[in-house]
Amino acid sequence: MLDLLRAKMINDSEGRNGFKQPKVMGSFIGHALPGSFFLIIGLWWCTKSILKYVCKKQKRTCYLGSKALFHRLEILEGITLVGMALTGMAGEQFIPGGPYLKLYDYKQGQWNQLLGWHHFTMYFFFGLIGVAHILCFIFSSLPFCLIKLMLSNALFVEAFVFYNHTHGREMLDIFVHQLLVLVILLTGLIAFLEFLVRNNVLLELLRSSLTLLQGSWFFQIGFVLYPPDGSPAWDLVDHENIMFLTICFCWHYAVALVIVGMNYAFVTWLVKSRLKRLCSSEIGLLKSVEREQESEEEM
Amino acid sequence: MLDLLRAKMINDSEGRNGFKQPKVMGSFIGHALPGSFFLIIGLWWCTKSILKYVCKKQKRTCYLGSKALFHRLEILEGITLVGMALTGMAGEQFIPGGPYLKLYDYKQGQWNQLLGWHHFTMYFFFGLIGVAHILCFIFSSLPFCLIKLMLSNALFVEAFVFYNHTHGREMLDIFVHQLLVLVILLTGLIAFLEFLVRNNVLLELLRSSLTLLQGSWFFQIGFVLYPPDGSPAWDLVDHENIMFLTICFCWHYAVALVIVGMNYAFVTWLVKSRLKRLCSSEIGLLKSVEREQESEEEM
Amino acid sequence: MLDLLRAKMINDSEGRNGFKQPKVMGSFIGHALPGSFFLIIGLWWCTKSILKYVCKKQKRTCYLGSKALFHRLEILEGITLVGMALTGMAGEQFIPGGPYLKLYDYKQGQWNQLLGWHHFTMYFFFGLIGVAHILCFIFSSLPFCLIKLMLSNALFVEAFVFYNHTHGREMLDIFVHQLLVLVILLTGLIAFLEFLVRNNVLLELLRSSLTLLQGSWFFQIGFVLYPPDGSPAWDLVDHENIMFLTICFCWHYAVALVIVGMNYAFVTWLVKSRLKRLCSSEIGLLKSVEREQESEEEM
Amino acid sequence: MLDLLRAKMINDSEGRNGFKQPKVMGSFIGHALPGSFFLIIGLWWCTKSILKYVCKKQKRTCYLGSKALFHRLEILEGITLVGMALTGMAGEQFIPGGPYLKLYDYKQGQWNQLLGWHHFTMYFFFGLIGVAHILCFIFSSLPFCLIKLMLSNALFVEAFVFYNHTHGREMLDIFVHQLLVLVILLTGLIAFLEFLVRNNVLLELLRSSLTLLQGSWFFQIGFVLYPPDGSPAWDLVDHENIMFLTICFCWHYAVALVIVGMNYAFVTWLVKSRLKRLCSSEIGLLKSVEREQESEEEM
Repeated sequence: MLDLLRAKMINDSEGRNGFKQPKVMGSFIGHALPGSFFLIIGLWWCTKSILKYVCKKQKRTCYLGSKALFHRLEILEGITLVGMALTGMAGEQFIPGGPYLKLYDYKQGQWNQLLGWHHFTMYFFFGLIGVAHILCFIFSSLPFCLIKLMLSNALFVEAFVFYNHTHGREMLDIFVHQLLVLVILLTGLIAFLEFLVRNNVLLELLRSSLTLLQGSWFFQIGFVLYPPDGSPAWDLVDHENIMFLTICFCWHYAVALVIVGMNYAFVTWLVKSRLKRLCSSEIGLLKSVEREQESEEEM
Repeated sequence: MLDLLRAKMINDSEGRNGFKQPKVMGSFIGHALPGSFFLIIGLWWCTKSILKYVCKKQKRTCYLGSKALFHRLEILEGITLVGMALTGMAGEQFIPGGPYLKLYDYKQGQWNQLLGWHHFTMYFFFGLIGVAHILCFIFSSLPFCLIKLMLSNALFVEAFVFYNHTHGREMLDIFVHQLLVLVILLTGLIAFLEFLVRNNVLLELLRSSLTLLQGSWFFQIGFVLYPPDGSPAWDLVDHENIMFLTICFCWHYAVALVIVGMNYAFVTWLVKSRLKRLCSSEIGLLKSVEREQESEEEM
Repeated sequence: MLDLLRAKMINDSEGRNGFKQPKVMGSFIGHALPGSFFLIIGLWWCTKSILKYVCKKQKRTCYLGSKALFHRLEILEGITLVGMALTGMAGEQFIPGGPYLKLYDYKQGQWNQLLGWHHFTMYFFFGLIGVAHILCFIFSSLPFCLIKLMLSNALFVEAFVFYNHTHGREMLDIFVHQLLVLVILLTGLIAFLEFLVRNNVLLELLRSSLTLLQGSWFFQIGFVLYPPDGSPAWDLVDHENIMFLTICFCWHYAVALVIVGMNYAFVTWLVKSRLKRLCSSEIGLLKSVEREQESEEEM
Repeated sequence: MLDLLRAKMINDSEGRNGFKQPKVMGSFIGHALPGSFFLIIGLWWCTKSILKYVCKKQKRTCYLGSKALFHRLEILEGITLVGMALTGMAGEQFIPGGPYLKLYDYKQGQWNQLLGWHHFTMYFFFGLIGVAHILCFIFSSLPFCLIKLMLSNALFVEAFVFYNHTHGREMLDIFVHQLLVLVILLTGLIAFLEFLVRNNVLLELLRSSLTLLQGSWFFQIGFVLYPPDGSPAWDLVDHENIMFLTICFCWHYAVALVIVGMNYAFVTWLVKSRLKRLCSSEIGLLKSVEREQESEEEM
């Protein structure tokens, strides 16, 4: 009975993937693309947050981190996000064998490739973040934290869709997607917390590292479910694999933390070395004063 | 065995609806009425929040957004809420075939139409919001945020009742009600957050858009379970339908966000165009000063 | 098979109660006692919060709400709590047929009346609140919000114990205890929030009303599981009963809210009428000034 | 069928433990070591928090609690944490019969001792707290609350790993580990709250007492699953044992609270008695002034 069910499920999943990808390879790319996107955006957010924080600490925003530069960067980020979202939405619809904007297949009397429409919806909400970016910098009356709200919004929607994405699949398939939902949900919560508690650099770095984790976990899912070297997929009903992927998830996170830490060290060193050339004497004085004040606050 | 259970369930649900509605159409109206209510109240909250925010930003509350006007609007909202709640409570009790305030049917030895009593209870708690509105504006010693507390209260009670509303129904029926519970719970959490963090316009707009989503989702439930054109209901045990309703829910939310955004643009334009006629020179100066201050804060 | 299981369960529960109470009546009292305790403490907390708030608003603490009086009331509350906890702990141990401090029955090779020990543990943690009360008023170095922390602590422990209290019972029995856990957990969360956000009268009143709800729900459980008039217990496997108890829970809450509201009106009237005799002219002036300031803040 | 499954499980668990420990005793030590670690660190955190708080209250940090001393203590804590984490990681890998850094056993075609790797990962994240300690005191530009963030991070990772640690074990085994996950999760939440709300001594003491609870619960798990006196393990499928362990958990917590309270009394007495010798007259005056101010704030 259970074996029958299992066999049926495998047939189902083959049928499902059969629509979209003629080769197994295709599905790996389907996970690698969002993975790369989140890795890039995570690195960018991380660098931006550190840059802002270091510039503010050094009180030397005149040279490197001028306001105008940051404004232009923000609007550029918005345009990039909108562009990526539009590309993703178009790609999901018009790839060979895609839904071509057809939601219901009246001939066969069934829904037409709903998984593609799921991805389409997620891209749309990420596009809204870009729209919020652009609107906030065009109209002065809009509050700036709208961006954070739309970000947490997009992440919550993504988590919601992924949570309902894996009805009737195999145990390991569900497990890796559950971990994905976990990390997306946590990122969304951190983004919402940033919306309430502003200008906390550690929260921003935490969000960046969770975004990096999400990106690398997309790659991991691709490797587990559709090995790109053509080898057979992992055993999807083995408990040992779940045990391994649990710690694998933690290691991904550890690597993300280390990358953020090294990025911090690199950016700080870069800003300081550039500033040293300009005005080496004053900064030393400023720093010692700040250190005093801080340690007083801490006590 | 499973088929028997399923058949029994369908009989149950027919029996349950048989009490109240002689026609299938009736149940659609039963979902359309609260849906319309939440759509209207969502639009009103959204407009009120934007109006308050824009008036405050322009620092020109003298003409449009005078305090007395807002006071009168608030008390009007309270009276309307109480009126709607009383109508709803009376309607649930005294529609033809309703419970007529009889809770227990001693003849048949069973509870009398508990679903009607469920709705009755929810209406009562929404009426309490109206009472809080009225009391806050009569007695000055009451804190104003009592309204937000009663609002989150009513929403939590509604979520709690809906959560226990669907014992022993079909999969899809349960799923659409679970999504309803999700959106009500989120709205309640946002309202509670507003109670703690006051005067945050984005939280108010988020609540408005979630209220709009709740309203339109009531309509969607009506269309799924009781199609008003007389066509047969959707297949309640098909996984594909769940997959579709997942993204459908996201699209409803996207539409709600777009409506709130367009409302914001419209109200802002209205206020500004009216003010421009009055005093066009001063505002330009004020705006540029504000913009400066804000961008400083953001950095 | 299921019927056998059910029959076994009923035997178990009879056996369980057989230890402690020779009559069914006893168990009703076992629920009525904590119910009365929570009703009394809820009413007292509610009155205290309102009194403090009204006195502060009137800025006339000299006469009615002098600091010394409140200090003495707090320490009295602490002593009462310790006394009640000690009585409860002793009662659970030394009632006829109780465990008499014996945890493990070596003769029968099994645990000795663990449900009694459960109640014992809960009373102990409520006693700790009283200890915190007393310590805070003896030693000035202790922060006052320790009381709120110990309160939320005791409530979380109570929720945890009740959550693990009903292994292997009937559906309706589990359901009413789940609702109890829900209300205790919410009260604990509100108390913890009070610990973080101090001096918010509405949070205090919300906690009071939830405490009243808890008290009256204890009575409801007693009436459902052990009807005091000797009639047979409710049908524990009927879905309709769950549907009814859902709204019944909401009605209990509505009554608790109404009681708190009427208490507020009564205490405010009492304080005002007493003050009016003393200094009728000044208050009117003060009030109108305050009202002005408040409405400015709200806008 | 169920008995077969049970027998299989017991064989599995024997096999699992068979890898690592030739004697049953070994596994008790495996729980006692982290237990001792958490007991020591809990006591240390508790003492440090109280010392800081009392010194600040007395405004006499010159003598006992000089800043330099606290700085040196913090860096010492960091080095100790890193040392303990490295020892733990090395121990997990290179004990006789350990994995010796081999993750996958190609001969047998299966993962190599994943439970050991789980523990390895947890130690690594606790090592990161130590690294954060050291970095924060070397580089002045890093915010001090990074330590709290890394602490909550390590605890969340620990909770996550333990949550996925017990697939396919016995009921009681799962239950005691679930309670462990509960206490770790709560400690992580409190640490995250400390990251947001700084310098709240009660939150720090709450975290300390939860850490003590975690330590003593590790010992309890060791006693339940691998009794060190060689007696047979507890009956893992008995509901009564779950009922007992529920209250046992509460008693552990009560003991932890009492230890923290006694520690508070002892440290306060120590600081005061030392100060009294130095400057007995001034403190009395200061204290009474403070008391006045506080009671005003409370009202």
